[in-house]
Amino acid sequence: MISPLLTDLYQLTMAYGYWKLNMHNQEAVFHLIFRSNPFRGNYALACGLDTIIDFLQDWHFSADDLAYLASVTSATGERLFPEDFLDYLGQLRFTCDVDAIPEGTVVFPHQPLIRIKGPLLQGQLIESTLLNVINFQTLIATKASRVYQAAHGEDILEFGLRRAQGPDGALLASRAAYIGGCKATSNVLAGKLYGIPLRGTHAHSWVVAFADEISAFTAYAEVMPHNCVLLVDTYDTVKGVAHAIEVGRKLRAAGGELLGIRLDSGDLAKLSIIAREMLDAAGFQQTQIVASNSLDEYVIEQLKEQGAKISIWGVGTNLVTAYDQPALDGVYKLSALRDLQGRWQYKIKLSEQTIKISNPGIYQVRRYFSGKALLRDVMYNADTGISDEPKVQSVDGSHEMPALTTYDTSVDLLQPIFIKGKLTYTREAIDVIRQRAIDEVTQFLKTHSKKLYPVGLEKSLYELKQRLIDDLSAVNHLES
Amino acid sequence: MISPLLTDLYQLTMAYGYWKLNMHNQEAVFHLIFRSNPFRGNYALACGLDTIIDFLQDWHFSADDLAYLASVTSATGERLFPEDFLDYLGQLRFTCDVDAIPEGTVVFPHQPLIRIKGPLLQGQLIESTLLNVINFQTLIATKASRVYQAAHGEDILEFGLRRAQGPDGALLASRAAYIGGCKATSNVLAGKLYGIPLRGTHAHSWVVAFADEISAFTAYAEVMPHNCVLLVDTYDTVKGVAHAIEVGRKLRAAGGELLGIRLDSGDLAKLSIIAREMLDAAGFQQTQIVASNSLDEYVIEQLKEQGAKISIWGVGTNLVTAYDQPALDGVYKLSALRDLQGRWQYKIKLSEQTIKISNPGIYQVRRYFSGKALLRDVMYNADTGISDEPKVQSVDGSHEMPALTTYDTSVDLLQPIFIKGKLTYTREAIDVIRQRAIDEVTQFLKTHSKKLYPVGLEKSLYELKQRLIDDLSAVNHLES
Repeated sequence: MISPLLTDLYQLTMAYGYWKLNMHNQEAVFHLIFRSNPFRGNYALACGLDTIIDFLQDWHFSADDLAYLASVTSATGERLFPEDFLDYLGQLRFTCDVDAIPEGTVVFPHQPLIRIKGPLLQGQLIESTLLNVINFQTLIATKASRVYQAAHGEDILEFGLRRAQGPDGALLASRAAYIGGCKATSNVLAGKLYGIPLRGTHAHSWVVAFADEISAFTAYAEVMPHNCVLLVDTYDTVKGVAHAIEVGRKLRAAGGELLGIRLDSGDLAKLSIIAREMLDAAGFQQTQIVASNSLDEYVIEQLKEQGAKISIWGVGTNLVTAYDQPALDGVYKLSALRDLQGRWQYKIKLSEQTIKISNPGIYQVRRYFSGKALLRDVMYNADTGISDEPKVQSVDGSHEMPALTTYDTSVDLLQPIFIKGKLTYTREAIDVIRQRAIDEVTQFLKTHSKKLYPVGLEKSLYELKQRLIDDLSAVNHLES
Repeated sequence: MISPLLTDLYQLTMAYGYWKLNMHNQEAVFHLIFRSNPFRGNYALACGLDTIIDFLQDWHFSADDLAYLASVTSATGERLFPEDFLDYLGQLRFTCDVDAIPEGTVVFPHQPLIRIKGPLLQGQLIESTLLNVINFQTLIATKASRVYQAAHGEDILEFGLRRAQGPDGALLASRAAYIGGCKATSNVLAGKLYGIPLRGTHAHSWVVAFADEISAFTAYAEVMPHNCVLLVDTYDTVKGVAHAIEVGRKLRAAGGELLGIRLDSGDLAKLSIIAREMLDAAGFQQTQIVASNSLDEYVIEQLKEQGAKISIWGVGTNLVTAYDQPALDGVYKLSALRDLQGRWQYKIKLSEQTIKISNPGIYQVRRYFSGKALLRDVMYNADTGISDEPKVQSVDGSHEMPALTTYDTSVDLLQPIFIKGKLTYTREAIDVIRQRAIDEVTQFLKTHSKKLYPVGLEKSLYELKQRLIDDLSAVNHLES
């Protein structure tokens, strides 16, 4: 259970301000978007919604939380939150509408992964937690998907626990990595919590605990006759393979089977080729070669190019920390606020960079298909709808996109999750999400292996944004 | 509370193996070390022990854990853990000795941060959790220490929650960042759990929620008269500063004070110089300038070189994910195992790289000082002790280090934490740990701002290691 205190202090000071000014129940719309594809890729995989559902279902401030907030002071030592505000927080329950793109869907920059519609104060208070959860799981699911594609669908085992960023840096990474395409995890608690298959071999310490390698292998085969994957590089890898074969023969004679060997150091391409030849020559054609040691999508591609005979890839640190880009740049922006007359006031935040100006309105994303192939995504204002043949501006505003003359189907990506604080969404099994992710990415890369995917703004929404920029510049006396 | 299932599956299969072979209670020694200083620096800060103490104090398998383990199968569908082994796990309690280097101590590669001595099975089962916790918190404390040093002791606020790697990727980062030198965090739950001071300003969404910036600032000053730090870059930063001054004057007239302004985009050096001039000219010399936006130790150094007038640094993503190196390379190695005759058998793991060959024995680290200045660290076998004038080999084995002819004091870094599973260590307040970290790093950098710090192996330990390498090479028929 995630505490509602897992938020930034300023969310609470702003919440207090909205409450004090009687703005707290003004209906507001917030969107959670990310601004650029991670890993210099051309897509991301939505992930983390299930954790958010848990969080929002149970969102309430306990007496203990309120007692702590009563003790919080400013830099000058003044108490920040008066008792009447804390009483208000104590009785507060989540009452927003939440719409979201289901986990395992291919998504792109500037699209809302989550849309929150409801009291301004509530939308503000949950911001930090939503960003924390979605940024991380989306990042790791995307990374895992890239690793899966690099391995051409061969088994990826996620081994990242020991160097992940804290206990649930590991757990949520295991979940997201499985959704992105991993076959199993070594993290036992992740297996228990999320129903992910578990796999493992043994460590160097097993070998070191015995007098020599052959005794260690013999002992492991004895205790794990049906789960025997031997780590062969504790002393000398090639001799280790010979020892594994020797033990594999005895194991076979006793009714078991050498499932695999694992390489964890050295030149993995060269060693795997040697090991494969040795295993095949000895009649162990079915014995798999597992490799680990600082693997990621780039290393796997290189090893494949070098002809490596590896059939199972153990990926750890580089996957679970997204080592080459350890954070997604997700943001959460207020885009509409209903005024006292009940009219929506659309909102943007300016920036010197056009692409960082936030988008106003209440967003939906429509995805157009030709057969199963993705053609284009168009963001439109859910409040005003979209025509059958919409005019569309590119998302950076630079050009009008040509009309989409033919398409087979279209689908709106954001689906209702909570209605007025009540969960209405049927939660999906993790294997359903994982299969969607694999299918969607594989399909997407068929047509867009390198290409940027076209994402546009429906024309009237684009024009609304331009009007707001002009108005704001006038009100705030900005130079044009 | 961290579950004992937060471990890799292979720890459990090896544990089963040790139990099955009746090796599970053989007394073993494991060390947790890291191999290289993070961020191309020349030191690290030990951090995470307090989390480990919580974990080990409560370490036991619940009925629910055992039921889950009963369901775990191999790739071929065979149940991995028989009932009698699970019964054994169910009654198991932690009975090891734990020695560790206190949090906030400056540490170096190859030194044991934690030493575990006790039943082989227990030492094996806790490995993954210890690595997960110590790797991450040590990494972040070290990063924070670097940021603190770059800011020359000016206030650092940790703002990383939204892009941290999951909920306790954020929480434990807040804790480690505070220990490393941060002044406060924005993470309210971290404040509650660890007693860290909280700080915050307001977000762009506050400004956007009002008709214009001046209304937003006026409203914030009204509700937070004693905690008024205004974010000035929602529309145009320089105009934002002017609006903040205007509101600051009214606030002062009403008995409050403009504590600060925050810059979150654009050329922070240039804008802070302009803002400082505007604030000073308007009589707001005490108003602080807070800056945020992708800061880290490198950017802070650059901004200082450019003459930036920033006095408070808000650091987020780059700190809490350790963006430029998001994992520490900590490992955990079996280094001694008592045989059936009660004699210690010393253990190493070989590697093609000399520096990756693990060290045998039962380690202690002695640190020598001249006054407060660190002179040298020497690792020795706690079982055999160290002479007053030890001969010392460099840790990579390349040369014998010159005798340390004069020193004032020496101290053994590893301290008893648990004795036979019972906590004997008096846990330290986080502020005590933080002050030690700041003092030690500041002192260390006086003599070693760039230089590598000398860490050696006591000669007889080095010779033991050489003997083991030779013996193993013979037993395993390795080429020399």
